[in-house]
Amino acid sequence: MLSFEHSLKVRYVECDPMQRAHHSSYLIWFEESRIELLNHLNLPYEQLEFDGYFIPVIEASIQYIKPIHFNDRLNIRIELKEKPKLRFSFNYSLKRDHEIVAKGSTKHVFINDKSSVIRPPDSFQKAICDFWSP
Amino acid sequence: MLSFEHSLKVRYVECDPMQRAHHSSYLIWFEESRIELLNHLNLPYEQLEFDGYFIPVIEASIQYIKPIHFNDRLNIRIELKEKPKLRFSFNYSLKRDHEIVAKGSTKHVFINDKSSVIRPPDSFQKAICDFWSP
Amino acid sequence: MLSFEHSLKVRYVECDPMQRAHHSSYLIWFEESRIELLNHLNLPYEQLEFDGYFIPVIEASIQYIKPIHFNDRLNIRIELKEKPKLRFSFNYSLKRDHEIVAKGSTKHVFINDKSSVIRPPDSFQKAICDFWSP
Amino acid sequence: MLSFEHSLKVRYVECDPMQRAHHSSYLIWFEESRIELLNHLNLPYEQLEFDGYFIPVIEASIQYIKPIHFNDRLNIRIELKEKPKLRFSFNYSLKRDHEIVAKGSTKHVFINDKSSVIRPPDSFQKAICDFWSP
Repeated sequence: MLSFEHSLKVRYVECDPMQRAHHSSYLIWFEESRIELLNHLNLPYEQLEFDGYFIPVIEASIQYIKPIHFNDRLNIRIELKEKPKLRFSFNYSLKRDHEIVAKGSTKHVFINDKSSVIRPPDSFQKAICDFWSP
Repeated sequence: MLSFEHSLKVRYVECDPMQRAHHSSYLIWFEESRIELLNHLNLPYEQLEFDGYFIPVIEASIQYIKPIHFNDRLNIRIELKEKPKLRFSFNYSLKRDHEIVAKGSTKHVFINDKSSVIRPPDSFQKAICDFWSP
Repeated sequence: MLSFEHSLKVRYVECDPMQRAHHSSYLIWFEESRIELLNHLNLPYEQLEFDGYFIPVIEASIQYIKPIHFNDRLNIRIELKEKPKLRFSFNYSLKRDHEIVAKGSTKHVFINDKSSVIRPPDSFQKAICDFWSP
Repeated sequence: MLSFEHSLKVRYVECDPMQRAHHSSYLIWFEESRIELLNHLNLPYEQLEFDGYFIPVIEASIQYIKPIHFNDRLNIRIELKEKPKLRFSFNYSLKRDHEIVAKGSTKHVFINDKSSVIRPPDSFQKAICDFWSP
């Protein structure tokens, strides 16, 4: 398994008239945690894109468990439970203090600059293996 | 069943360096179609909030089927398949021309201004019944 | 002078806990009106980008005159007062019913795909001239 | 003068098909630096709002000097040059490494929950004085 923790603070602009974080913000936080995971693996996503590899989202789901508010400090735990084949999924859990406030998952593929699905590049597979914990 | 169609054009700001609509934008379009459905039912959401009724999202899922691009004209079909009880769900399908490019669903409850789950207000139930097609 | 009017409705996600449209949304509406102006000139911006011409914003200013709320119907008037040289500016006024609720301006240049400032392409100059009113 | 520095990383969602940070993102980063300044002054903005004080933006301007890219680390310096009267302004400069990539300013007032302009609360004036450097 590969896991990583990332922390962020809820922005004012991310909150809506209901005084809660808007439900679309969660996907942006999930994305930020994926980007930071890649930074942590020494595989910055801008380098992957520069090399012609793109990782679109092909499915996403979110469970909104507790309302999240402006200026809340959130901890996101992102997990990759299976080594990437053509398709691979990340799971997310958001905590405020020690309480889980949301969960989610995203499914991905690698594509090239012609939008064709391709196998994950070796650099990605190797980085995953290097940081994999049984 | 209750269904409604809404059309929109993809904004530049909604697209990302991958030259596609960002995957979080879909939730915003789904929301816009819910709002327009409520406008169509003569139940504008700002009136519901003014009356102390709020409709947060408690679950969401999205399938990204085909990439969506800047300036694309999209048609969203929103459907309510079962009359609202405490929890109720909308289904969405996004079309560009005659091709389905994405699908999704959101689950909701009504809450009051103390964040307690409440039964949908009568005005909502009545409007749903008035526009219901068997 | 070249002018164009575009209408839009304020989205829920664009509003913040103050129950107003967030001040960053205005730049997005201004952009939408520029895009629609280009569509109107038969010069869709995706075609300009495809041809290697990009129009970044180099300056922007906004005056927030009256609060704007969710589901408000806004009319944006965009004006180009001088024919484009290297730099050119658009002016915007936002109306709700007959009341001006905000004003703004954005300054632009054309750049190529190497980020070098270039002269506006002939197609753009010609379209401006065709729609120019003295 | 009161000044504060805040650091952030550019999100993927904040970048557009031009491969640059979208010009509306800058206002969001400016806001984040105001929020962090208030946190630093022990005057969290959610507490001000809870107490019935709101600080809308009444004017904003931005100069986009150099393009900003995904994953860039930015430093925002926010400055308050004059002690707040009814209206007060913040100035911002964004640096990447030692290069200024953007500048801006925002003008504000305090309002109450009826949208009436009011004098800044004593807690705010006192905090400003405590952190003021001549």
